[in-house]
Amino acid sequence: MKQEFSHLSAEGDPRMVDVSEKAVTARTAVAQTIVVLDEAIMDRLENDEIHTKKGPVFQTAILAGIMGAKRTSDLIPLCHPIGLDNCEVNIVVNERREVVITCTARVTGRTGVEMEALTGASVAALTIYDMCKGFSHEIEIRETKLLKKTGGKRDFKRA
Amino acid sequence: MKQEFSHLSAEGDPRMVDVSEKAVTARTAVAQTIVVLDEAIMDRLENDEIHTKKGPVFQTAILAGIMGAKRTSDLIPLCHPIGLDNCEVNIVVNERREVVITCTARVTGRTGVEMEALTGASVAALTIYDMCKGFSHEIEIRETKLLKKTGGKRDFKRA
Amino acid sequence: MKQEFSHLSAEGDPRMVDVSEKAVTARTAVAQTIVVLDEAIMDRLENDEIHTKKGPVFQTAILAGIMGAKRTSDLIPLCHPIGLDNCEVNIVVNERREVVITCTARVTGRTGVEMEALTGASVAALTIYDMCKGFSHEIEIRETKLLKKTGGKRDFKRA
Amino acid sequence: MKQEFSHLSAEGDPRMVDVSEKAVTARTAVAQTIVVLDEAIMDRLENDEIHTKKGPVFQTAILAGIMGAKRTSDLIPLCHPIGLDNCEVNIVVNERREVVITCTARVTGRTGVEMEALTGASVAALTIYDMCKGFSHEIEIRETKLLKKTGGKRDFKRA
Amino acid sequence: MKQEFSHLSAEGDPRMVDVSEKAVTARTAVAQTIVVLDEAIMDRLENDEIHTKKGPVFQTAILAGIMGAKRTSDLIPLCHPIGLDNCEVNIVVNERREVVITCTARVTGRTGVEMEALTGASVAALTIYDMCKGFSHEIEIRETKLLKKTGGKRDFKRA
Amino acid sequence: MKQEFSHLSAEGDPRMVDVSEKAVTARTAVAQTIVVLDEAIMDRLENDEIHTKKGPVFQTAILAGIMGAKRTSDLIPLCHPIGLDNCEVNIVVNERREVVITCTARVTGRTGVEMEALTGASVAALTIYDMCKGFSHEIEIRETKLLKKTGGKRDFKRA
Repeated sequence: MKQEFSHLSAEGDPRMVDVSEKAVTARTAVAQTIVVLDEAIMDRLENDEIHTKKGPVFQTAILAGIMGAKRTSDLIPLCHPIGLDNCEVNIVVNERREVVITCTARVTGRTGVEMEALTGASVAALTIYDMCKGFSHEIEIRETKLLKKTGGKRDFKRA
Repeated sequence: MKQEFSHLSAEGDPRMVDVSEKAVTARTAVAQTIVVLDEAIMDRLENDEIHTKKGPVFQTAILAGIMGAKRTSDLIPLCHPIGLDNCEVNIVVNERREVVITCTARVTGRTGVEMEALTGASVAALTIYDMCKGFSHEIEIRETKLLKKTGGKRDFKRA
Repeated sequence: MKQEFSHLSAEGDPRMVDVSEKAVTARTAVAQTIVVLDEAIMDRLENDEIHTKKGPVFQTAILAGIMGAKRTSDLIPLCHPIGLDNCEVNIVVNERREVVITCTARVTGRTGVEMEALTGASVAALTIYDMCKGFSHEIEIRETKLLKKTGGKRDFKRA
Repeated sequence: MKQEFSHLSAEGDPRMVDVSEKAVTARTAVAQTIVVLDEAIMDRLENDEIHTKKGPVFQTAILAGIMGAKRTSDLIPLCHPIGLDNCEVNIVVNERREVVITCTARVTGRTGVEMEALTGASVAALTIYDMCKGFSHEIEIRETKLLKKTGGKRDFKRA
Repeated sequence: MKQEFSHLSAEGDPRMVDVSEKAVTARTAVAQTIVVLDEAIMDRLENDEIHTKKGPVFQTAILAGIMGAKRTSDLIPLCHPIGLDNCEVNIVVNERREVVITCTARVTGRTGVEMEALTGASVAALTIYDMCKGFSHEIEIRETKLLKKTGGKRDFKRA
Repeated sequence: MKQEFSHLSAEGDPRMVDVSEKAVTARTAVAQTIVVLDEAIMDRLENDEIHTKKGPVFQTAILAGIMGAKRTSDLIPLCHPIGLDNCEVNIVVNERREVVITCTARVTGRTGVEMEALTGASVAALTIYDMCKGFSHEIEIRETKLLKKTGGKRDFKRA
């Protein structure tokens, strides 16, 4: 039996997935994205963002990510409009001097919040880009992916 | 002389860049993002999206990207609200079976449209993710970057 | 006893209807609108939209309708902000060569989704207008109406 | 020579129309829609809306229409985001006891405001529907159409 | 033991408050703001707004307040997106000829609606400002505050 | 001759002001609002916000204010949708331990940005409220007013 795109009708038209029969459960999702900036920009960020952990670039990105997650159903055409019980964005610099953004979304509802987590991470990344682009366009957003989800039909955890 | 973050005031507070003295010029930007889906999903897409070039997944992503580009200043905290003269999203599958999204934005204004192009490409990528996630979460959005910009103080073209 | 406008207070001021005491039930609504385009435009649409049922004009309208339904409470001043469990837009051409748009909305909540269904159908119709207006303004949107609702105090079905 | 859909690329993908080469001119558009309500509702409206011309139903609809016109490019996927120099919504009851909504939009820009006028009229009509639906769903929105446009390549005036 | 900002993480980053473990209860909040206009403007308002209680200035402000309350989570970065069971805005002129706006919000949910009530009152006040500023900028919005809340961990009532 | 409300038609209906004949000029506006928090909250803020001037509460409020200013025409029914060349929000604590928010907006256009400055200041104030309300509701937003405007028919400067 062939599995079909859940977002396409039998005629191939885009559609929402009907979640009216799904159970209301506690659902979480964690997504990650990585922003790679050139060395000169990273040096700038080091002074403030990384050492004090209170720099305005990362803080702006955190807020943009949270607000972006709340706008997910406005942006992604077939996403259900749902509330959020929580949304948290964390930003760290890893040992390879890459900026690692993690967005965790949580809801009690009939459908998962993977897209909210992914959208939050992506908007945070775009915001870092925006704030650093005055120095250089040698910036790349990469590896936006889901790390984990729980509470739906199938849990997922990236190996 | 040290160059500063254009989006931070002398006190380190986030701010818009004042563009009131900038010239009104024709500005364009082209951004690209790549979505890598697992083979099973790509096989699904092949049948419709890739061969006929009219599949509903890519068309939905194109529209979401265009609409997302129009929402850029709602999402990115320090972006100027500007109009758009044009926005075009193209999606192709390259020889490595990666989905390549290109977003071109154009405006006649006082500030560039890099963030519009990047946001349009990102939202299109997230939409492909959303429509394919019913099959698997083995999906990764990678290499979101600016390819080109013209019309501002400095043109940019990625080598 | 005189029945009053539910959206007006005793003083005649506009207000929301208080639904806090209403039961949470599964509610659906189906609305329809008809777009009449001149013959030259219909001939254009025939080649692609109607025969393959995958034309980009109707697909764009379907997506706009779904996204419009999600924005209902942003547009209609006294509508409650509610989620949607599902929203589906269908477009067919009837035997009189009229374009018939049907929008079905579904929610589990304290208030009905008639306005969501009507808004979704209307935005889909406006989108068809937008995409065809390059040919001619001999386009008319007509007969936007509710076909059916279930799950509230009184069901409704148009005769 | 065959005329093509301006909103479709050569490959048939939806796209904005590039207006970057168009002249900035003063542009206006007038759209109309008609709402037909059943007699019981019309009797209600008579007492307040129609005689004093200051009833809250029509005033709410006027405001919703103006606000809706401002949201046009958020709703219609391929509409350009543009400003508005003016937007005016008028509502009268004609001799057949139909509610006639007229929306006039005006901008100085590179593209017309037909969709803004049509969206404003439609949202006003939906708002009247919303405020009267407590009485009955015997309501129909009909004959949404463009009456006039000026300032673009071709003026239009409905015969 | 030191109480911390609920909207800041241990690292001092802004975050939402996780409400996933909170009980779903009926919650209400009432907020008030006062607009003081100069005498010339008040004289204008007297003729229509105050005597008939159906003036277009106050009615526009009421609608703007209700719609603004619905947009709260779009505006306030760390507010949860929640529905509203009801929102009511009242405007009266007190014995000192000040315009007193009261906004009541109500929801059945995991978090309170204080910010919705405060945002609704504020947007209504800004709208009165906007409609009267053609006469004079001698207008001041003052004393925006919460009057009452019920349904959460702690009720509140201003003395 | 009696001066009329610019936002009301001859019939008393709300309407935008037609600015199509106004000159495109550089326009600025500065608005201020004051938030008074109880002593316990101010003590908290002192440690971080006030001494380092980089506290997350004020930074969140600054960003919310800028983003709120960009949404002005979505919130205030009769405001024109216009761009912004700049928006800046500053927050200081004065000698009476009041939090003073100043919002400066700037545009090159046909209409002023008073409402943008006032909305930005108000949303920043509401955000401070939101972030501090976990401690106490003894918070008051007061004295929202315009300080200055330039570039329109009449300049304004508060005495």
